[in-house]
Amino acid sequence: MSLHTSSTSAVLAGARSASLSETDRLDASTDRSGYVSQSLPDGVVFAETTDDVVSTLRLATAHRTPIVTRGAGTGLAAGASARSGEVVLDVSRMNKILRIDPVEQLAVVEPGALNADLNAAVGEYGLFYAPDPASTSICSIGGNVATNAGGMRCAKYGVTRDAVLSLNVVLADGRQLRTGRETMKGVSGYDLNALIVGSEGTLGVVTEATLRLRPLPVATATVAAFFPDFATAAQAASAVIASRIQPSMLELIDGQTLEAIDMAMGTTYRSQGGAFLLAQTDGYGAHLEQDVLIEAIRPLATSIEKANDDEHAAELVTARREAIPCLEKLGRVSIGDIGVPRGRLAEVAVGLNDISERTGVRIYSVVHASDGNLHPMLVLNPEDSVTEGPAKVALGEMFYLAKSLGGTLTGEHGIGLLKRDWLLPELGEVSLDVMRSIKDAIDPHGLLNPGKAI
Amino acid sequence: MSLHTSSTSAVLAGARSASLSETDRLDASTDRSGYVSQSLPDGVVFAETTDDVVSTLRLATAHRTPIVTRGAGTGLAAGASARSGEVVLDVSRMNKILRIDPVEQLAVVEPGALNADLNAAVGEYGLFYAPDPASTSICSIGGNVATNAGGMRCAKYGVTRDAVLSLNVVLADGRQLRTGRETMKGVSGYDLNALIVGSEGTLGVVTEATLRLRPLPVATATVAAFFPDFATAAQAASAVIASRIQPSMLELIDGQTLEAIDMAMGTTYRSQGGAFLLAQTDGYGAHLEQDVLIEAIRPLATSIEKANDDEHAAELVTARREAIPCLEKLGRVSIGDIGVPRGRLAEVAVGLNDISERTGVRIYSVVHASDGNLHPMLVLNPEDSVTEGPAKVALGEMFYLAKSLGGTLTGEHGIGLLKRDWLLPELGEVSLDVMRSIKDAIDPHGLLNPGKAI
Repeated sequence: MSLHTSSTSAVLAGARSASLSETDRLDASTDRSGYVSQSLPDGVVFAETTDDVVSTLRLATAHRTPIVTRGAGTGLAAGASARSGEVVLDVSRMNKILRIDPVEQLAVVEPGALNADLNAAVGEYGLFYAPDPASTSICSIGGNVATNAGGMRCAKYGVTRDAVLSLNVVLADGRQLRTGRETMKGVSGYDLNALIVGSEGTLGVVTEATLRLRPLPVATATVAAFFPDFATAAQAASAVIASRIQPSMLELIDGQTLEAIDMAMGTTYRSQGGAFLLAQTDGYGAHLEQDVLIEAIRPLATSIEKANDDEHAAELVTARREAIPCLEKLGRVSIGDIGVPRGRLAEVAVGLNDISERTGVRIYSVVHASDGNLHPMLVLNPEDSVTEGPAKVALGEMFYLAKSLGGTLTGEHGIGLLKRDWLLPELGEVSLDVMRSIKDAIDPHGLLNPGKAI
Repeated sequence: MSLHTSSTSAVLAGARSASLSETDRLDASTDRSGYVSQSLPDGVVFAETTDDVVSTLRLATAHRTPIVTRGAGTGLAAGASARSGEVVLDVSRMNKILRIDPVEQLAVVEPGALNADLNAAVGEYGLFYAPDPASTSICSIGGNVATNAGGMRCAKYGVTRDAVLSLNVVLADGRQLRTGRETMKGVSGYDLNALIVGSEGTLGVVTEATLRLRPLPVATATVAAFFPDFATAAQAASAVIASRIQPSMLELIDGQTLEAIDMAMGTTYRSQGGAFLLAQTDGYGAHLEQDVLIEAIRPLATSIEKANDDEHAAELVTARREAIPCLEKLGRVSIGDIGVPRGRLAEVAVGLNDISERTGVRIYSVVHASDGNLHPMLVLNPEDSVTEGPAKVALGEMFYLAKSLGGTLTGEHGIGLLKRDWLLPELGEVSLDVMRSIKDAIDPHGLLNPGKAI
C-alpha cells in the first residue's frame, strides 16, 4: 500500500481519459532498458491536449501526486519506468505534426509524434530533421527531447538540443512555459530550451516542440570497410577524424555484433572481417570528402567498398539500425552509452574486452565513432537482472573505463534509474547540488519523475 | 553614499590586487554600448588566478557585496557597466591559453584570452575557433561566453554555446562548479554549460573554458554583390537560404553604412550600389555552392564579383568588420541586435526605414543575413543619451518591429542594462519567473551582476 494512493486516485479520477488496467500499468513500468520496476504505477492518464496535461498537473500539485511522463516507451535508461504511488502521464496520443514551414525550415510537433514520421512528412519538402536515434521508427520526439537524443548523423548535424528552437512546457503547477524562440539566434535571458532538453521529465512536460529542419543533402557517398578487429577499426575511425573531413555518419560494429546481425538477417558481414566501419559523407563535397576518407582508412582496412547505389547504401544503414533487435534475439540486452575523446576509441575497445573477460558478461559494441559515443551492449540470460550481479558490475566498470579516459557515463540515453549510482562520481558534488537546487526551484514539491536523472 | 560602502571596502582590502583610482573605476562604469552609469563602482579587483576569484567571491558572500565581473569591456548592452556600491572583478589579466589539443580539436583558455589571439594560436595547428564577433581582435572569451556571442560564420558553425564543451565556474559562495565535459556528446544531468553561457555574469564567474575547435576549411569562395537598395539585398539573402546551400558567411551592409565605410577607409563601395552582400562558402564543396549562390542572387543584383584571391576576400571582410568603428566617427553609436525569421529580412528593412523617419534617428544596418540577425545602428549626436529620448524610442520600436515579425530583442549581444525594459514583453511572465527562481537558487543573495540580464 503506497503513501500516495489517495492522491493518485484523485488525479486519475479527474482525468478525461485514464486507465487502471494491469496491462497499461505493466507497460508503464518498463521501457527498452531491461529494467523492471518492483511495483506497478497506480494508473495511467492519457493526455490528448495541452489542456489535459495542464489539468492533470494542477491536480497533481493540489494532491502532491508524483507524475511520470511517458511517450513511446523506447527509453534505454529506465527514465520513464513508473512504480507504485505514481501516476503515469502518457502523451503518446498527442502525436500531431502541427506545422511545417519550408521557408524558415522548421516544424512544430506534439511530443508523441514519432521521429521517423516527422522525417517522412518533412522529406516531402526536401527537408530533414537531423537527430536520428537507431530507434527512429518507434521513438517519439518528446522522448528525444527528454534525453537530448543523438543518433548517427549528429556529429555533423547536431543532437536534439541543437535542433530545438522552442518548447511549450507545462510546469508542475500547471503554468505554461514557452522556451526559446523561432529565430535561429537569440540570447534574451537564460537558455531554458537547453535546460529542458535532456532533463528527463524532471522539470516539466513538453507539449509542443518547434524544431529546426535542414535541406536534404544534394549527394551522399557511402563506404563500407572491414578490419581485422574492433581495435583496428577504432584506429581507422580516429584516422578519419584526423583527416579533417566531417563524415555525416561513421558507425563502427564489432565482430560479434556482425555475427548476430548475420544470424538474424541472413547477411554475411562477419565472413568479410572482424569489424565493420560504415562511413557516409554528404553535401556538395561528398565525393571529394569520400576520397580523403578512403585514403585515411586504407592502411588499416582489409577491404573497402563504395556503395554502388542508394539501395546498397540503405541496406548497410539498415544493418546498423537493426543491431539492437538482432541482439535481442540472443538474450536480454542492456545497452551501455559511454562517451570518450575521439582519439581514444581503440583503448576503449581493449578495455571492454578486459571487462567482458573479467565479468563473464558478453559485450557487443556498436559505436558512433565520429563523436566518440559507444554502445557496448550486454547480452544477458533472460532471467538475469540488469541492475544487479555481473551486469551491474560490467556497467560500472564500463563507466570507470570511460572516466579514466576522460569520458562520460552517457552520451545520449540519459541517466534514468539505471545509471543513478554513478552520477555522483560522474558530476561531482557541487554540480549535483546546483542541479538539485534548480530542480527544487522549478518543481518545489518534487512531483515530476521523482528519483530519475539527478 | 552607498549602502554597501563598508562591504565593498572589505572585499577590496582583501584582494591581492585592487584599485580605487578614478580612471579604473571610470573604465569599469562603461562598455561599448554607449551607456553611461550615473555613478562609479567603489573599486576594481584584478584577478590573476582562479584562487583570486574564489577568495574575492567568498569575501563578497561574507559581506553581501555586489560583484560585477568584467573582461575586455567590449560589451554592447551595458552588461558589465558597474556603479556605486559595487565591486568590479576584472579577469582580463587571466588571459592564458592553457592547452591546445589538436587530436581532440579543443583548447582550454582563461576568460581574458582574446578571441583573435585564440584563433591565431590554434591556426598554427590548422584549426579555428568558430564564434567570431566583429570585435574579435579586442573581445575576450569570457565575455563571449557571458553573452553567447555569435559572429559572421555562426550560421554554419554555431554560436558560443555550441563551441563550449566545459567550463570552470566560481559560484557566488566561492565553490567551484565544473560544467559539461571534454567529449563531443554527453547527457548526464542538466545542461549547466548552456545555462552559464549567455547568463551575463549573473550566475557565476567563468575562470576556464574548454572550447571545441574545427579544422580550417580546405577552400573558401567569396562573392561580393551589389543591389539597388537594402530591401532588395535582403530579398537576395532570403533567396540564398531558399537555395539550400549553407554559406559560411552572408553579410549584408546597407547604403548609408557603405558611405560611412568609404569616408573612413577611402573605399568606393557606395558608388557601386545601394546595398552590399558579402557571401562566403567553404569546405570541399565551396565552389559548387558558390555557383548555386550566384544563380540565386543573379536576378536581383546589379553586379556580382568573385574575389580573385585571398587578399581581395580579406579586404571585403575587413570592410564589414570595421563598420562599427567607421560609424563611430560620425557620432555616438548605439547598436541594435534584433533577430527575425530569415525569410522576413526585407520587411525589417522597410520597417527600419519607417522608424528612422518617425523618430528622426539615423539608422545604419549591417546584417548577419544567414541567421536573420540584424544590427541596426543608431548614430546619435555625441551629447545624446542612448537610454532616453529618440534613441530609446527607436530601440523600443525596433524591438516591437522584430516581435511583430516573430523575432527577438537580441540575437547575440545580450540584455545587460540597456534592454531590460523590453524583457517582460519578450519573455513573458512565466519565463522570467522561472529564470529568476534559477537565479535565486544559484546566487541566493543576488550578488552577481545585480540588475542585469533578467
